[in-house]
Amino acid sequence: MLDKLSAIVGATNVMTGDARARWMTEWTGYFPSDPLAVVRPGSTEEVAQVIRLANETGTPVVPVSGNTGLAGGTQAVGAITLSLDRMNKIHEIRPDARIAIVDAGVILSDMHQAAEAESLIFPLTFGAKGSAMIGGVLSTNAGGSNVLRYGNTRDLVLGIEAVLPNGEVVNLMSELHKDNSGYNLRHLLVGAEGTLGVITRAVLKLMPKPRAYATAMVAVPTLEQALLLLNRLQEATGGAVEAFEYMPRNYIEAHKRLNPANRAPFDEMHDINLMVEVGATAPRDVTPGPDGVVPIAAHLEQTLADMFEQGLLLDAVVAQNDSQRQAMWERREAAAEIVMGSGRPVSNNDIAVPVDKVAEFFARMTPRLDALDPGAEPIVVAHLGDGNVHYAVWMSVEDARTKDAVTEAVEDEVLRLGGSFSAEHGIGQGKLSSMARRKDRVALAAMRAIKQALDPNGIMNPGKVLPPVND
Amino acid sequence: MLDKLSAIVGATNVMTGDARARWMTEWTGYFPSDPLAVVRPGSTEEVAQVIRLANETGTPVVPVSGNTGLAGGTQAVGAITLSLDRMNKIHEIRPDARIAIVDAGVILSDMHQAAEAESLIFPLTFGAKGSAMIGGVLSTNAGGSNVLRYGNTRDLVLGIEAVLPNGEVVNLMSELHKDNSGYNLRHLLVGAEGTLGVITRAVLKLMPKPRAYATAMVAVPTLEQALLLLNRLQEATGGAVEAFEYMPRNYIEAHKRLNPANRAPFDEMHDINLMVEVGATAPRDVTPGPDGVVPIAAHLEQTLADMFEQGLLLDAVVAQNDSQRQAMWERREAAAEIVMGSGRPVSNNDIAVPVDKVAEFFARMTPRLDALDPGAEPIVVAHLGDGNVHYAVWMSVEDARTKDAVTEAVEDEVLRLGGSFSAEHGIGQGKLSSMARRKDRVALAAMRAIKQALDPNGIMNPGKVLPPVND
Repeated sequence: MLDKLSAIVGATNVMTGDARARWMTEWTGYFPSDPLAVVRPGSTEEVAQVIRLANETGTPVVPVSGNTGLAGGTQAVGAITLSLDRMNKIHEIRPDARIAIVDAGVILSDMHQAAEAESLIFPLTFGAKGSAMIGGVLSTNAGGSNVLRYGNTRDLVLGIEAVLPNGEVVNLMSELHKDNSGYNLRHLLVGAEGTLGVITRAVLKLMPKPRAYATAMVAVPTLEQALLLLNRLQEATGGAVEAFEYMPRNYIEAHKRLNPANRAPFDEMHDINLMVEVGATAPRDVTPGPDGVVPIAAHLEQTLADMFEQGLLLDAVVAQNDSQRQAMWERREAAAEIVMGSGRPVSNNDIAVPVDKVAEFFARMTPRLDALDPGAEPIVVAHLGDGNVHYAVWMSVEDARTKDAVTEAVEDEVLRLGGSFSAEHGIGQGKLSSMARRKDRVALAAMRAIKQALDPNGIMNPGKVLPPVND
Repeated sequence: MLDKLSAIVGATNVMTGDARARWMTEWTGYFPSDPLAVVRPGSTEEVAQVIRLANETGTPVVPVSGNTGLAGGTQAVGAITLSLDRMNKIHEIRPDARIAIVDAGVILSDMHQAAEAESLIFPLTFGAKGSAMIGGVLSTNAGGSNVLRYGNTRDLVLGIEAVLPNGEVVNLMSELHKDNSGYNLRHLLVGAEGTLGVITRAVLKLMPKPRAYATAMVAVPTLEQALLLLNRLQEATGGAVEAFEYMPRNYIEAHKRLNPANRAPFDEMHDINLMVEVGATAPRDVTPGPDGVVPIAAHLEQTLADMFEQGLLLDAVVAQNDSQRQAMWERREAAAEIVMGSGRPVSNNDIAVPVDKVAEFFARMTPRLDALDPGAEPIVVAHLGDGNVHYAVWMSVEDARTKDAVTEAVEDEVLRLGGSFSAEHGIGQGKLSSMARRKDRVALAAMRAIKQALDPNGIMNPGKVLPPVND
């Protein structure tokens, strides 16, 4: 097997023994890998040959790109770890058509820089952007902090190329905004977490780079005022809110502990802190008024001032320059380090509820958490504008059963409020029991039928997304 | 069989003989039906029972809602025609959440009115809106004139309920903008044209109703200037262009012939006529300036005036009131009557190319059409902002072989330009040969595998979307 793999990708690109180290751990620490080998193809054709070999021999294949997922979707034991990291070319950026044609191994922040060089943006962003790669971003339909304005990854991709479980290459590299020619295989492969094939290339949508941003940290008395602020800002700017992020007091405190250089947003500590950002796309929004203030900033400052006068706001700081803005983003994007880096056991829950139900969700969880683990402490951060709450919990002890009980309680309350038990991190292995317990039975059966039809030998990322049938 | 169907939906809702008349013809005239019976269920449960019976007996089922498609997707011969028209309730509109929960049989224009009553819009619109129903709109992933700003139907639906080919009901009625819990079955069923099941209910996204529109007819010397106008308008308004529609001279002339009351947009006839509309969503766009003109209209008028001065524009008329605006829309939405109502045989082609390749597509088609049928005349209308061209051709004779040769020539040129042979009307039966000839082989095989997995008895709308394997 190793010889055959070496014949396909070259011996230096088949890693065994200690050379696999980089791919054996991932940073949540919950999903260590022990792959048969790590194989690093250099082209789609090499990916196809590896998958064909795996399919013929019944060898499981686990695709991995940046390996920054939080749900264990890349854990490989006795499988081939297929790393896309060598396929990292940005083939083309066409500014007029506002598209980029890229390989799966392109790092997200490299994509950001390449787009910005053309005065465009690829708007998807989240904390792990310096490591996450396009392939993983697509396979998990990643979300992040700009979904409110620009949508999930799914909404930002026009076309893909992928290798199916039988080793055949499917070319869906459309650059069009309208294409109704049969079943939408692109949307099936995006978000399938590598269980239906390996995405190797994509046509991404780029957006005009906002001419200016206005960014602020805001403290409000309750989540009701937070929603009011969101609605007033959307109204004032015609829907230009790019980010609306929630950070509670213990998040701010944990961020300060992470690094002595980190500072709190306000002199006083508040319970409910928001990071808000609006982006100006039209010239009229950046033409300074008589007072020298550009309209986009004026909209934000006026909205904040009005709410402060009405007693609906506790505190607000508007970024005065780019480095102040960057500091606000850095605090938000430290979420994963804050949650996972405390040394305490973590129950991770990535859920979504209707935006006006977030406060009720928190209220319902408090007694349930107390009953399950009185020493537990929620460490929450949320894309509040999407109703997407990362309801992580620092547990008092490392105990799988209690963690799962917490997850069950979260599922109960989320589903009661019409929400989803998995918003943007996907299922991987971490949420398999949630899938088994909560997903619509008929939907689950249809997913299994599709998996069986496209991957009859079950070689593509087995044990992920779909819980075992007997669950 | 008829007794069993009557037992499910009631005898009055099983139409046979002449009572089927309404469902036996459709207005292209190319796809007459002769169904076993027309069955009109009143609930999802009744749909499920009908499908279960059909699946057990191997009886084909053809779902139909408004029956306004152009590709023959609802032709039924010896099959059960399953009409969703009785399931026509708008169950709920939640203005704060900006969603509507509706049955598949709701007529599109009824949905428009219900949304407008809440100062919201359901932005999808096209000529057949007074008959088309939500179920068909979803099943075909319909496009239309506002895709430029709001996306296709696929982008406007958060959740669906559907009956799968085995008669089981799948509940995917999410109201969330983020939900990553397994394969995206919604996007698989949307656009599957009823071949993978029957969509019975949906959660639709609503959008804020623009506070004002500015609408104009514009004549330009070439398509290059048309693109320039689009880009300048997008720039001036920050992306507020809602419609950018192309109508050539013979379209305008045919529209005048349709009804003596119809008038041409300009005193003089021009070759390239555009209907453009921008929509104002922010208060600042509708606050009148010192001259009394609201900014959204000023942006449009200024852009047109500048281009006229630069010799880039031949003529322009801005709608001065709602009835002038409606007349502009009415002209555009008469497309299907214009194309199909001439009495001449029609070759229908609904294609998309990159926006900057439309002129090249036209230029390439002229000699090819001349060679195939010297008496033929293209009768074109286009969603130019999407690169979506309805390249219909009035043929000199009714001849299937020549028609197909025209379609092949269209496919050749479209694919050479990186386009799609089916943009928004879908495949149905009319584009089956295009699918067989042009669709990626691996994609087609994957689609067939999915169809086989979900509908092993092949009962759901057989003979549509997927060409026979021996093609």
